[in-house]
Amino acid sequence: MTPRVKEILSWYGADSPGTLTNLARLLNHGRLGGTGKLVILPVDQGFEHGPARSFAPNPPAYDPRYHFELAIQAGCNAYAAPLGFLEAGGRDFIGDLPLILKTNDADSLDTTEPNQAITGSVADAIRLGCSAVGFTIYPGSANQYEMFGQVRAIAKEAKAKGLAVVIWSYPRGAALTKAGETSIDVIAYAAQIAAQLGAHIIKVKLPSAHIEQEEAKKVYEQQKIPIKTQAERVAHVVQSAFAGRRIVIFSGGAANFDDKALFEEFQAIHDGGGFGSIVGRNSFQRPHAEAIKMLHTAMDIHAGKAKAP
Amino acid sequence: MTPRVKEILSWYGADSPGTLTNLARLLNHGRLGGTGKLVILPVDQGFEHGPARSFAPNPPAYDPRYHFELAIQAGCNAYAAPLGFLEAGGRDFIGDLPLILKTNDADSLDTTEPNQAITGSVADAIRLGCSAVGFTIYPGSANQYEMFGQVRAIAKEAKAKGLAVVIWSYPRGAALTKAGETSIDVIAYAAQIAAQLGAHIIKVKLPSAHIEQEEAKKVYEQQKIPIKTQAERVAHVVQSAFAGRRIVIFSGGAANFDDKALFEEFQAIHDGGGFGSIVGRNSFQRPHAEAIKMLHTAMDIHAGKAKAP
Amino acid sequence: MTPRVKEILSWYGADSPGTLTNLARLLNHGRLGGTGKLVILPVDQGFEHGPARSFAPNPPAYDPRYHFELAIQAGCNAYAAPLGFLEAGGRDFIGDLPLILKTNDADSLDTTEPNQAITGSVADAIRLGCSAVGFTIYPGSANQYEMFGQVRAIAKEAKAKGLAVVIWSYPRGAALTKAGETSIDVIAYAAQIAAQLGAHIIKVKLPSAHIEQEEAKKVYEQQKIPIKTQAERVAHVVQSAFAGRRIVIFSGGAANFDDKALFEEFQAIHDGGGFGSIVGRNSFQRPHAEAIKMLHTAMDIHAGKAKAP
Amino acid sequence: MTPRVKEILSWYGADSPGTLTNLARLLNHGRLGGTGKLVILPVDQGFEHGPARSFAPNPPAYDPRYHFELAIQAGCNAYAAPLGFLEAGGRDFIGDLPLILKTNDADSLDTTEPNQAITGSVADAIRLGCSAVGFTIYPGSANQYEMFGQVRAIAKEAKAKGLAVVIWSYPRGAALTKAGETSIDVIAYAAQIAAQLGAHIIKVKLPSAHIEQEEAKKVYEQQKIPIKTQAERVAHVVQSAFAGRRIVIFSGGAANFDDKALFEEFQAIHDGGGFGSIVGRNSFQRPHAEAIKMLHTAMDIHAGKAKAP
Amino acid sequence: MTPRVKEILSWYGADSPGTLTNLARLLNHGRLGGTGKLVILPVDQGFEHGPARSFAPNPPAYDPRYHFELAIQAGCNAYAAPLGFLEAGGRDFIGDLPLILKTNDADSLDTTEPNQAITGSVADAIRLGCSAVGFTIYPGSANQYEMFGQVRAIAKEAKAKGLAVVIWSYPRGAALTKAGETSIDVIAYAAQIAAQLGAHIIKVKLPSAHIEQEEAKKVYEQQKIPIKTQAERVAHVVQSAFAGRRIVIFSGGAANFDDKALFEEFQAIHDGGGFGSIVGRNSFQRPHAEAIKMLHTAMDIHAGKAKAP
Repeated sequence: MTPRVKEILSWYGADSPGTLTNLARLLNHGRLGGTGKLVILPVDQGFEHGPARSFAPNPPAYDPRYHFELAIQAGCNAYAAPLGFLEAGGRDFIGDLPLILKTNDADSLDTTEPNQAITGSVADAIRLGCSAVGFTIYPGSANQYEMFGQVRAIAKEAKAKGLAVVIWSYPRGAALTKAGETSIDVIAYAAQIAAQLGAHIIKVKLPSAHIEQEEAKKVYEQQKIPIKTQAERVAHVVQSAFAGRRIVIFSGGAANFDDKALFEEFQAIHDGGGFGSIVGRNSFQRPHAEAIKMLHTAMDIHAGKAKAP
Repeated sequence: MTPRVKEILSWYGADSPGTLTNLARLLNHGRLGGTGKLVILPVDQGFEHGPARSFAPNPPAYDPRYHFELAIQAGCNAYAAPLGFLEAGGRDFIGDLPLILKTNDADSLDTTEPNQAITGSVADAIRLGCSAVGFTIYPGSANQYEMFGQVRAIAKEAKAKGLAVVIWSYPRGAALTKAGETSIDVIAYAAQIAAQLGAHIIKVKLPSAHIEQEEAKKVYEQQKIPIKTQAERVAHVVQSAFAGRRIVIFSGGAANFDDKALFEEFQAIHDGGGFGSIVGRNSFQRPHAEAIKMLHTAMDIHAGKAKAP
Repeated sequence: MTPRVKEILSWYGADSPGTLTNLARLLNHGRLGGTGKLVILPVDQGFEHGPARSFAPNPPAYDPRYHFELAIQAGCNAYAAPLGFLEAGGRDFIGDLPLILKTNDADSLDTTEPNQAITGSVADAIRLGCSAVGFTIYPGSANQYEMFGQVRAIAKEAKAKGLAVVIWSYPRGAALTKAGETSIDVIAYAAQIAAQLGAHIIKVKLPSAHIEQEEAKKVYEQQKIPIKTQAERVAHVVQSAFAGRRIVIFSGGAANFDDKALFEEFQAIHDGGGFGSIVGRNSFQRPHAEAIKMLHTAMDIHAGKAKAP
Repeated sequence: MTPRVKEILSWYGADSPGTLTNLARLLNHGRLGGTGKLVILPVDQGFEHGPARSFAPNPPAYDPRYHFELAIQAGCNAYAAPLGFLEAGGRDFIGDLPLILKTNDADSLDTTEPNQAITGSVADAIRLGCSAVGFTIYPGSANQYEMFGQVRAIAKEAKAKGLAVVIWSYPRGAALTKAGETSIDVIAYAAQIAAQLGAHIIKVKLPSAHIEQEEAKKVYEQQKIPIKTQAERVAHVVQSAFAGRRIVIFSGGAANFDDKALFEEFQAIHDGGGFGSIVGRNSFQRPHAEAIKMLHTAMDIHAGKAKAP
Repeated sequence: MTPRVKEILSWYGADSPGTLTNLARLLNHGRLGGTGKLVILPVDQGFEHGPARSFAPNPPAYDPRYHFELAIQAGCNAYAAPLGFLEAGGRDFIGDLPLILKTNDADSLDTTEPNQAITGSVADAIRLGCSAVGFTIYPGSANQYEMFGQVRAIAKEAKAKGLAVVIWSYPRGAALTKAGETSIDVIAYAAQIAAQLGAHIIKVKLPSAHIEQEEAKKVYEQQKIPIKTQAERVAHVVQSAFAGRRIVIFSGGAANFDDKALFEEFQAIHDGGGFGSIVGRNSFQRPHAEAIKMLHTAMDIHAGKAKAP
């Protein structure tokens, strides 16, 4: 156990040794093990975007085993996926890496106010040997309070049963403009909400410099909160999650296959004090070897061993 | 236990021996037993379309015992029906073939956004000696997430109690055009969703070459996914269900009494690597002897012992 | 136990001896005991239409004991009523006749899409010494699927606790015209749905020769299903309930105080192979002695001992 | 135990000795104890109308203890109030009079279709030493069926735990005109519904001679139901509650501080065979001594010891 | 135990020794311990308004530990916060001050009818060593009855498990104008509702002299209820909460950084017989030392040791 991991665990004073053990598993696994940084492979795109859009660019990825192998070989801290993918691939990789069961999912056939279906449970996560459950909330949706109530119930049960809790906090819905979904005030707010709901790990998108809420704008200007660079914005989001005492990881602001831009994003996350990345489409949609190389670079940037070119 | 059945069971690494035993029962029963192919007789049309539309063309079919006998005599792998039909006929055929209890049903008196009523439970399935529960979802309906949550709960209980899970995945509702309900992108997506929800066996309709979703269209064209022939489309759907590691079976794209067209559909399913068919109206709405003959031909085509004329 | 009752019980092969015992109680009680025919007295009109409309024409009927006495003295197979009526009168008639607790009810103050309130439970039925629970569904209502789910849950519990299940299947609501509520296709469909939901006894209205659904019309014409006479229509409805292997009883198509028309309806039910009648307003709204006489005639017609004049 | 109370208890043949004991407590307590008549003090106006409108006319009534004392000193049969009032005052008056916990309440800040919030439970009633639970239903509201289902569940639990059940049955909502809320047909209907839902004691408003429902009007005219005087209307309502075999009590038709009119209402209740009154605002909004005097007169009229002047 | 605290506890005669012990902890802790007055630090603004609007004016406040320290060092009676803040900071301050877990929360991304998400439970409160649970209701919202039902359920469980219950009663929603949200009649009503729902401690906003409801206006004028000064209005609200037999505390009517106005508000609360204040933004958004000084002044005013300048 490195001092940094010990320090991070010390922030979660309300959790049982069982939950902390699983949180430690995520922090201690893989190429970034012990650094306090995380790169997690998430593959829910089959559910969220459909199979062809997700896997046709790299057809071996249709196979659920592909993603376990990719995450293991790249040395990711964990692999996160919906029930079906974990059920279909898990037995071949028992004990090989920490798993996160996504317990809700949405599809792109949905035309109603943003929401998700409950697709997994704490009991499923335990049955599948997972270290954590994942849950997506949509702050700003007319369904947000129902989703908050759902994640609260799942988080309560997860903690009682020794699992860690990861919240994907994605603002969207009736209350927000498109630009508002990634605006700095709203992303920082989304991180705060996830933290207040009891998340151990918070996943948000990289924020833009746009400010959505009129009331917030006044404060950002009055207090001169620095949000010009991506690193500054990352720092503000991390601060917004309990002064950095919650693990906040990021995904890119847009689908993005230009590695230069991608690495710059990782660099900004690193420079702003972010705890790492969730890298999905940008890894499994390219050939295996290229994905491994990219992920290693990403990890090196997060670990401070490399700089974005 | 044939090597092929052993191979298929190996894909379900998260399931208990109890559930695998029931899945094996489905795969090992009847004329296709051991081949890894399935022809299942489903009779929910009394509920879905009404009694006269379903049974008047062949009046003995009003009797619940008729369908047990048809499935047994034709050598189907299983018989699937709603609660009432299984309650009314089951005692006369105990142990004669695997049963699947449909746990939700819709009727054609419905004018609201597509949905189904919960009409059965895992406890009912166990009480009736079934090997599996069936559940229909409507991806694209405004009710889809509620349905996903329902099937997840039923599937969780079924697996905990040693049953297999069959999902009928029928896209329809506010998000889709009529053509979109059987478009190749949406059918492949429907198969993926059912797989992610934890289905052991997935039932979809045969897809057309139409592409419904703009975002998907780009990928199909860019990646040159072959979807011109029915067999190619079947292969794509099978691939979309975890690279062929989930059992996917098909029904015809339309009510169809022309046996030539019907056999061509079976041939396409076989050539595309599909796992078999669900044949309802096309079997029980014709005289008993003709139905047996047709089903045997269907089985032979699926087993690769015959070619569609 | 007569051979006919034994035969009828043999159709319910999924039920426990406990449930069959209660079903036998209904079939073996009263003047029609052992014939396989049933005349049941139902009194939910106080709830459904209000007290004055129901009981003012024959004021002794305001008293809950009146209906027990009427049913006992007339030799009905059973008495069906909501919670309050059974609670208020039952102790004076313990063991005197089988009781059916209606577990949902509607009132005529309702202006919303057809639905019913849950007003009783299986535990209430057991506490009150009932042999069966009753439940009304409205196929065609926007609330139909919720009602199907409710009756399924109640039926499941009733069967587990040894009670029989009676479903009142009354089509109405957004999907239907007024004429459609009693059209032959829709009434036959309503009987099928109740059977599929697991009813032991199904109550429908006498159908008209009208056909509501376009798709059904084609089949009725193509298959030349005979529906011209009331007896033919009764026969079709009985066939639609599992080829006559479920008990189907009827109420008159309209409020009707002309005894000639009433007896013709009973005759048609008898001639079409129906299992009997539910006679409410036409019995308790006339003087006691007249009601007994009318009910005896009804029973004689059902038993084949008399012909409608 | 007086013969009259024994007679009344005999109507509740489905209830346990435990529940009958609590019903007897209500009937045997206070100045009317043993007469079979009841005057109950209800104080839910703080919740329903707000504190100033309720208590400013007689400021000592802001104190929850005031109402216990008033009910005790006046010799009421029972005191009915929401959770807070019973929690706040009960310990000072343990065993001094029977209590009724109102388990739902509404406020006048509501602008939606008439409904109530669940504010108490059977467990609360037991914890607070109550003899009965109270529940308000709104027949005619679009929410009526949900309310019926709620009271049914609470009544079931109350009876199982030895408590009596009081239903306030107040017609209102989308289905009714303002005049219809107190029309004789609708009030009689409301009493019938409460009785069918299993109430031991039914509280309705005094009806007017208006008839709301077209279908009912025909019957009232045809059967010449006498409804011209208030006493006749009371008699009709009592008859509508199981021919007088359920306890029906009344409140005035309107807020009314003219004692002459008030006493005439009590007289009409007495003459029509009503079982008593619920007197809220007319008692606690006047000075203590006057309230006691008025309540004693009310009791004397109900007991037949006095006549309205 | 001071006589005043003993007196206050005597008002809660329905509560268990366990709950009274926790209520006593709140009353006996800190600088106001034993006086019967309370100053509580609540920090739910991160959730309600977002992190930058809440904490940027005083950046150390981003850290969850900051608020524990502030409350302890200022000698507040208790600290109230959502789940995340209590989980993140509690272990460092075990036993240092009484805690209140807010069990529901709203955010400012909401555009629907006022409501809150359930974000905590009684089990969480116990796990975190809290003395009480907090819950916000919105009287006047179309969601009010659902919220009342939720708090009732949480309060019931809290009392059964020995915790105290604090209700934040904030009128808002469809039934109210903006001015009505703080009008004297509505604030007094909000206090009454919270008391009837079983709150031990009630938190309302300081009322204005505006009267919202027509029916209430008549009574205020007729009864000449004094509401001209803030102290008179406080007295009326306290009286409206069971004649002062429930603890009612206040927050300022508006965000307010002018200490003079703030102290005048505290003085009015004191003069009107209010039990104290909840001071959030006005304390943690200013530098630590200033906050302590301000809070000490506030406490002195509440204790009657100082006068507002």
